[in-house]
Amino acid sequence: MTSDRIWTAALLIIGDEILSGRTQDRNVGQVATWLNTQGIRLTEVRVVADDMGAIGEAVNALKARNDYLFTTGGIGPTHDDITVDAIAAALGVEVEIHPEARAVLEGYYESRGGINEARLRMARVPAGATLIKNAATGAPGIRVGDIFILAGVPRIAELMLEALTGTLEGGRPMLSRTIGCWVPESEVADLLRATEADHTGSQIGSYPFWRDGRGGANFVVRSTDPATVEACIAAIGAGLTALGYEPVADGI
Amino acid sequence: MTSDRIWTAALLIIGDEILSGRTQDRNVGQVATWLNTQGIRLTEVRVVADDMGAIGEAVNALKARNDYLFTTGGIGPTHDDITVDAIAAALGVEVEIHPEARAVLEGYYESRGGINEARLRMARVPAGATLIKNAATGAPGIRVGDIFILAGVPRIAELMLEALTGTLEGGRPMLSRTIGCWVPESEVADLLRATEADHTGSQIGSYPFWRDGRGGANFVVRSTDPATVEACIAAIGAGLTALGYEPVADGI
Repeated sequence: MTSDRIWTAALLIIGDEILSGRTQDRNVGQVATWLNTQGIRLTEVRVVADDMGAIGEAVNALKARNDYLFTTGGIGPTHDDITVDAIAAALGVEVEIHPEARAVLEGYYESRGGINEARLRMARVPAGATLIKNAATGAPGIRVGDIFILAGVPRIAELMLEALTGTLEGGRPMLSRTIGCWVPESEVADLLRATEADHTGSQIGSYPFWRDGRGGANFVVRSTDPATVEACIAAIGAGLTALGYEPVADGI
Repeated sequence: MTSDRIWTAALLIIGDEILSGRTQDRNVGQVATWLNTQGIRLTEVRVVADDMGAIGEAVNALKARNDYLFTTGGIGPTHDDITVDAIAAALGVEVEIHPEARAVLEGYYESRGGINEARLRMARVPAGATLIKNAATGAPGIRVGDIFILAGVPRIAELMLEALTGTLEGGRPMLSRTIGCWVPESEVADLLRATEADHTGSQIGSYPFWRDGRGGANFVVRSTDPATVEACIAAIGAGLTALGYEPVADGI
């Protein structure tokens, strides 16, 4: 295993409310950003309904080809919260009450009406799981193998990610730098293609925009190697200048 | 084929910028909402990188089990725009220049520096495709069979959806109504479960929140049958009242 190994993760978002358009997802962005700081690359996201079969199929497909799998949603106390059952079924393990989760929930609800059957649902985990702390509501996230089961509420998911920070093995983080220009991207397509081809390990994205009545684009260079990022930024800047345009450092 | 047939769609979002966390997706919500008004149910979303293999695998998997497949992203003029090539490869057809798209682009760029090779890339389509109009920039969306290839820029994708409005066969739209309450969802889990079980064809989602220093939840009832929606809302309202809580019509 060398330092060049790329560690990958997939994200599975579970929830009818995303597919119906009722709720705007906020977890893709925060999980993606967090993973990058851990040196882990997000390779694929899926959004599926609150459905045992759909969740199970996605879990098995995604975990088979990634180092890590994160899920968000479906771990609350109500009937539509079936993530734990679906993942346990997909893994072929039983669902059990985690004693530490039970104790945390009993403590949390002691002054809030006491524990009940619905609240106790949040202590259910696939057999063999450990807990991911959640300081806000007591109900923990769950780690089973390299699957990380997080809450759907973005603020709670964020706290669970914080609890995991620095605990997962990763590689070199993907670095990125942006250079912008008031230029139609269709006039610099050759420049971008040639720059990416000339610099092994670089990825160059072109993101056009229309603002204040005129068009421009930001060009994002990504690589795990800082020298490659800098070389690509320099090449694009020089190319833009040669074409008679004025590059804008760090984007527009 | 009866009026009860459920028409389904999947959405494939193509773009490194979503997976890197750089760009917050806005297309899931707008495609989901638009599909619902067309009587089509969004069953799954995937986000994949700008990668021929990843796009092709997702296209084949999603189109095999849905009536329609929508994609967003990767149809611009630059080297990272490979959606057309990937979909053509997945379908086993050639890529060709669409004469009408070429004419539209030539007209659009006549006063904007003229056509060039990069701009002409946006006239490339999988063989057999038709165009989806885009009044904003000239570059069209693409329909090939029941695959709809849309722009990634949300405002352009929206215009393409508008151009498709009313043209796709669908079923009865999913109706929804919300009832809210300042109640911990864990105290009404039994009520929700029983209400859903008692009303065939209903789906009840529970969405907790924490606001102004106290907790509550919105309960969303969904069904294609208006009477079922109303009956569930009435049952939840009566149940909340019986438990000593005050339901809030249309949610909090």
